[in-house]
Amino acid sequence: MDLDSLKWDDNGLVAVVFQDEDTGEVLTLAYMNREALQRTLDTGKVHVFRRSHGRVMMKGETSGNYQLVKEILVDCDADALVMKIEQIGGAACHEGYRSCFYRRLAGDEFEVLGERLFDPKEVYDS
Amino acid sequence: MDLDSLKWDDNGLVAVVFQDEDTGEVLTLAYMNREALQRTLDTGKVHVFRRSHGRVMMKGETSGNYQLVKEILVDCDADALVMKIEQIGGAACHEGYRSCFYRRLAGDEFEVLGERLFDPKEVYDS
Repeated sequence: MDLDSLKWDDNGLVAVVFQDEDTGEVLTLAYMNREALQRTLDTGKVHVFRRSHGRVMMKGETSGNYQLVKEILVDCDADALVMKIEQIGGAACHEGYRSCFYRRLAGDEFEVLGERLFDPKEVYDS
Repeated sequence: MDLDSLKWDDNGLVAVVFQDEDTGEVLTLAYMNREALQRTLDTGKVHVFRRSHGRVMMKGETSGNYQLVKEILVDCDADALVMKIEQIGGAACHEGYRSCFYRRLAGDEFEVLGERLFDPKEVYDS
């Protein structure tokens, strides 16, 4: 199969799991439309479709925490991708953590696992 | 935050990334509704909402390749989970591969990486 065989959902998106190429840590789950995927392929830097903004953005555009794509995998249904990436700048999460998945279920509550690498107020509100 | 703070999408689903607890390999991306999540928590075995079937199913119900949940992480937006699991029976993918992400982009084409552990025709059509 090739890229034209991907199955985009009703909103023209595929889900993408971003995984640290060295540690295997899952850093982010995000969505790409065709344009975001093409810009990712053309530049080697992750671009996503931000549903909250309604547009394609380079990941790390504001924070400088961008991602270099090393490997792209597709799943059996051709509607989800895994991208193995090199995380530049340390933090993949806009909350300032290494991974967006920085909370773990313990009993009925999620507890914070990671440490903040930056303060989101200083990065995004200035 | 707790489980009641999860943000279900318009179809009542959250995306879940299933990751091998030992190797970190991403095995599957699937979706859970509240019922699937509750049955997963109650039994310790992964249950998903199969969009193609329109119902909750235990993963591996037919093939015997089920998954034991070891750890559950939630992302910053509370609309996606990572579940670290122990894969019983070897193959997470209904196509017979260890991982659903068994194809890698090489140039413009996806090439098969993994080896088939079972023949889906023998497991699902008999």
